[in-house]
Amino acid sequence: MKTRVISGLIMVPLLVLVYLGGYFILAACTMVAIMGVREFYCGFEAMGIKPWKTLGMISAVPLAVIGCLSPEGWDLIALWIMVFVMVSLLYMFKIQERNPEDSMATILGIIYVVFFAYHVYLVDHAMHILVWMIFITAFGTDIFAYFSGYFFGKHKMAPVLSPKKTIEGAVGGVAGSAICSLLFAVIFAPEMIIHCAILGILCSPVSMAGDLTASAFKRKMGIKDYGNLIPGHGGIMDRFDSVLFVAPVVYYYIHFVIQ
Amino acid sequence: MKTRVISGLIMVPLLVLVYLGGYFILAACTMVAIMGVREFYCGFEAMGIKPWKTLGMISAVPLAVIGCLSPEGWDLIALWIMVFVMVSLLYMFKIQERNPEDSMATILGIIYVVFFAYHVYLVDHAMHILVWMIFITAFGTDIFAYFSGYFFGKHKMAPVLSPKKTIEGAVGGVAGSAICSLLFAVIFAPEMIIHCAILGILCSPVSMAGDLTASAFKRKMGIKDYGNLIPGHGGIMDRFDSVLFVAPVVYYYIHFVIQ
Repeated sequence: MKTRVISGLIMVPLLVLVYLGGYFILAACTMVAIMGVREFYCGFEAMGIKPWKTLGMISAVPLAVIGCLSPEGWDLIALWIMVFVMVSLLYMFKIQERNPEDSMATILGIIYVVFFAYHVYLVDHAMHILVWMIFITAFGTDIFAYFSGYFFGKHKMAPVLSPKKTIEGAVGGVAGSAICSLLFAVIFAPEMIIHCAILGILCSPVSMAGDLTASAFKRKMGIKDYGNLIPGHGGIMDRFDSVLFVAPVVYYYIHFVIQ
Repeated sequence: MKTRVISGLIMVPLLVLVYLGGYFILAACTMVAIMGVREFYCGFEAMGIKPWKTLGMISAVPLAVIGCLSPEGWDLIALWIMVFVMVSLLYMFKIQERNPEDSMATILGIIYVVFFAYHVYLVDHAMHILVWMIFITAFGTDIFAYFSGYFFGKHKMAPVLSPKKTIEGAVGGVAGSAICSLLFAVIFAPEMIIHCAILGILCSPVSMAGDLTASAFKRKMGIKDYGNLIPGHGGIMDRFDSVLFVAPVVYYYIHFVIQ
């Protein structure tokens, strides 16, 4: 637990990039996407699936260019998705060496890691102040669920998928996320208090779903952590599994509800 | 070959829907998407992968609704992609019964079949007359490649992937696609002659790539055809494998080059 807490502090430089916003966040998202998709693909290799690593990592670059030119240029993003899905499928043409699973895992990495991570930048672009909500709800849920579970946990939530998670932890996670979100709103965005409260409650279960999705993948891949980049936290993907799910929800909430 | 030609005529009702355009094409795309994704998933079942069939088939419905409300509503389409990717991933949570491959195949069906098929409607919406180019280039390539290969074929193009395809067939396919496109332009859209010529040549190899992608899947699935809906043509997916690849290319060409 000590390592876990201390290593959490390593995330501080990230806070600086989030604070600066704009291209700094875009650069951070692109880096997280490239490192994350690589870890994700290495996990697949552990279960005998061989995604096209280079393609997945490269896919983050044109998306970053779109981010510079026209962040919410959805037609460009649709073109980007189409091109990378098609090219991933062509990978299968060497059918003696490769399988549909290799193409499918490549595509999944590009959408689930690279495209989802891009939504952090989209949130920043749409409403800079609310980019904090992604991290407050994702990390707030994680930390409060961890400590609530540690002290009060009795009833297992998903015994097969993630044996340490308890219902008490989940409740504590939602409560923690809501409280942190409210505190944030009161201090930094009082005019947004209702939206922050809604996001605090809405994003918390989404964050857990992101965490459980990563657990399910790791179970099947037969690995404990995606990587070993941050001691006690595993790899980039272990730390950002919830963020990947929460960022799109915050973005579409801003885009369709607030704006 | 006789069955093949006669069955080709069964496609005539489709021409009527294409001619009518608008919601008729949207309805046709949605039906093709639902039947196609089902066939695609049944193919996966033949290789031991169990996609979430119901989800894939249902995914076409909200996309059709978006098509009615706001055809090029890319923000809605991005939300649609995100929701269906996330829900497909949750499918894995029953890790004792399900595998990442099941989720990945579900996602691939939703994007490669349902989303790609939607581009036929997008082309119609952006520039009705050019929707014909999708079918002229895809079917033109197919038919001319078939007959060129049949009469002149000598050098195998992809011996392992699709043993009957020849380089002579491919050249005939591109030439046939270009000629049909030019004829079409001269008669129906003389002001578009340059764009039709470019599309005729550009879409032909894309159409072959779509065909080979389907061949690669079918090889790995251990099936000869995706279905048996149209005698001599197999299932919906056997007939539309090229269209799925060509439609997005025509759409983005119109959107980014012509408009």
